[in-house]
Amino acid sequence: MAQITLGLIGLGTVGTGVVRLLRENGDLIEKKTGIRFRLKRIADRGIHAFREFPLDGYELSESAEAVLDDPEIEIAVELIGGYEPARTYLLQAIERGKHVITANKALLAKSGGEIFALADKVGVEVGFEGSVAGTVPIIRILQDGLAANRIEKVAGIINGTTNYILTRMAEDGLSYEAALAEAQRLGFAEADPALDVDGEDAAHKLSILATLAFGVRPERGDIHVEGIRGLEQADIRFAKENGYVLKLLAIGRKTNGHVELRVHPALVPARHPLASVRNEFNAVFVKGDASRETMYYGRGAGQMPTASAVLSDIIEIAERALHAPRGVRGVEGDRARKRTLYWSADRFLPIGEIRTRFYLRFPIVDAPGAIGSLTTILGRHGVSIAAVHASILDAASARGQIEILTHEAIERSVRAACAEIAGTGILREKERLIRVDE
Amino acid sequence: MAQITLGLIGLGTVGTGVVRLLRENGDLIEKKTGIRFRLKRIADRGIHAFREFPLDGYELSESAEAVLDDPEIEIAVELIGGYEPARTYLLQAIERGKHVITANKALLAKSGGEIFALADKVGVEVGFEGSVAGTVPIIRILQDGLAANRIEKVAGIINGTTNYILTRMAEDGLSYEAALAEAQRLGFAEADPALDVDGEDAAHKLSILATLAFGVRPERGDIHVEGIRGLEQADIRFAKENGYVLKLLAIGRKTNGHVELRVHPALVPARHPLASVRNEFNAVFVKGDASRETMYYGRGAGQMPTASAVLSDIIEIAERALHAPRGVRGVEGDRARKRTLYWSADRFLPIGEIRTRFYLRFPIVDAPGAIGSLTTILGRHGVSIAAVHASILDAASARGQIEILTHEAIERSVRAACAEIAGTGILREKERLIRVDE
Repeated sequence: MAQITLGLIGLGTVGTGVVRLLRENGDLIEKKTGIRFRLKRIADRGIHAFREFPLDGYELSESAEAVLDDPEIEIAVELIGGYEPARTYLLQAIERGKHVITANKALLAKSGGEIFALADKVGVEVGFEGSVAGTVPIIRILQDGLAANRIEKVAGIINGTTNYILTRMAEDGLSYEAALAEAQRLGFAEADPALDVDGEDAAHKLSILATLAFGVRPERGDIHVEGIRGLEQADIRFAKENGYVLKLLAIGRKTNGHVELRVHPALVPARHPLASVRNEFNAVFVKGDASRETMYYGRGAGQMPTASAVLSDIIEIAERALHAPRGVRGVEGDRARKRTLYWSADRFLPIGEIRTRFYLRFPIVDAPGAIGSLTTILGRHGVSIAAVHASILDAASARGQIEILTHEAIERSVRAACAEIAGTGILREKERLIRVDE
Repeated sequence: MAQITLGLIGLGTVGTGVVRLLRENGDLIEKKTGIRFRLKRIADRGIHAFREFPLDGYELSESAEAVLDDPEIEIAVELIGGYEPARTYLLQAIERGKHVITANKALLAKSGGEIFALADKVGVEVGFEGSVAGTVPIIRILQDGLAANRIEKVAGIINGTTNYILTRMAEDGLSYEAALAEAQRLGFAEADPALDVDGEDAAHKLSILATLAFGVRPERGDIHVEGIRGLEQADIRFAKENGYVLKLLAIGRKTNGHVELRVHPALVPARHPLASVRNEFNAVFVKGDASRETMYYGRGAGQMPTASAVLSDIIEIAERALHAPRGVRGVEGDRARKRTLYWSADRFLPIGEIRTRFYLRFPIVDAPGAIGSLTTILGRHGVSIAAVHASILDAASARGQIEILTHEAIERSVRAACAEIAGTGILREKERLIRVDE
């Protein structure tokens, strides 16, 4: 019976889940894999206040050093989150020859390059299955299951908070504010929801997916990010009436040697598999040149679902570590698994250059003449129209709105047309622009 | 640069896809993995009639022996399908120390035990990602991604032909016969569709999923199988009116130390992720104790989607083979990856013992008295009723029907009640029974 010794840094929600899962399913895992996983040390600043279950049998410490300094620990699991000191702990663990596991998407999005490079140099592995889409094994699906594919597109619902809010708005008619308040009450949204609702969390995860799918290493500025603040029932209504569902998508797409990366609300056709992803669930749609359309669905957060992802890393890295004892890498004739993460030289496409369909809503002051002006201006910018719907909201004051669904167009042209339309003075308020994803 | 030498037996649809994918994406795969895959030999009885593209650079043969006898070939890929000689080729390849890959679900369902045991003894690997759900990496998801979970349930739409037929029946109002004819015209169904429409193909795949999910080794008799022949628009209509979709499901469920395995049409709630799986697509829903509900979706067949799965096996096995050179297994101190497939001693639950909800439709001769008799008899057998809908189809002859949705009940009790109801003489025809899966 082989044995692998583990150390855990961070006994928060997910860390506690990892300890629970090892206790509850350790025997089953041993039966399947032939490996005994021994969690030797747990480090957490508040370890002595932990009361959920007895921690007998583990060596406890308030400081991460206890894990980092123990040469017996082969895999260090970092689950404290945040940027520092998580980054330092990971780098130190790697330097000391330990394989590391993290679910820290913000850290990986910012410092993944540094962490992977050091791990590669030392010859250890970095597991990060828990960093995107929680329990959904999307990391190994992209790395292994679809390894033979040229990935053409990934499109993910990878933030549970915003998907919960949009589901409540669509299914129960709640306003954005009411849906957010409900999400906060249920623990799906933080007191400060900015990271979720403004799309930053999804952007962190998209950065990781983009590396696995396209071999690129995006900086934050390479990803166009819009959140869901300000979405209205009018947007939801239009989506429904036209056979769409409104979702916050994280999209990565490869087009003519460029990669486009963007997080924004999007109209998804009601029959697209992403459209049926409701509430706090996550899903990642992946299209490969051979696999064609695939999708992977599950809980994007939560104690045990994320612990399931962390444990899958522990098991897989342990199996490879036992296969090839540490130190084999870097040696002459080394033939250990060695994946190249950044293999592409593709450049990123600025948001103005993307081609997609658009939903545009123009609040206008004078409906009859306006349709003509609007459509003429759009046409002059090369934006061709698939459907128009004009309505007078208030006949007395001639307040109305014009909704337009375009054919595929370049975003720059659509923006230029909108600016010109605004210049005519027929708009009561700024137009609404929502991209369609099909 | 490491190199792995491959041999292919069978240049049919999928085999051709494997050759194409290696040619088209070989460089990309090399960039990602650092491994050069060299396809050295191709064997196929009709190899000299192959005209799709030039086969320059491969050593061609009409006989599988050429691949089996070549000591340079490290991985042998069997894609001829059928039972024999596929079984013999696989066993011979294993005996000669080659890793093997197959997408042959019928063979694995019947002889998986024999094949895995020999591979284990010799110390080689068996890849079979292409055998279930085509491009969807469900094999490695169950083996690796969800490795830490106690799997509670798998429910798959794993036969594209029947899902296509049911989709056309539901969305376009076609009869079973018309939908089948259309599927045959489009190449989604064979001239003899029995293996698909009677559920046998799904049963083969369920047998493989059951081993990975529950560690059991089912014989054919342990799986209850019903196909989709005889499903009517009345069944579809009831499903729609009550918020369900009718699907052919392959279900594996663990209940109190038993495993139940069954393939049959089932009513799936319209909001369940499986309900949105349309046309020829496949999907597998998996519920683990930690992961909770997850689902994996993609094309279940087709040249390139299945080739994508076969290539993923080639890559993963190659990485492990390079890690631990052949021969390491079975040696004292062996620490190579060694998964136990059959780790459970659970028994199989006979179909009569399962607990689920049922949809029952009774064609009756006399509506008024019949409701009373029916519900009384069901009640006496412990079957409690969630909803009843009675309708007179033809007032003159008092022909009617009673539709009943039950609460959870034991199938044996429902069957006994139906037999007693038939005995009262109020039925015009045999009742319809469809299980609900929630």
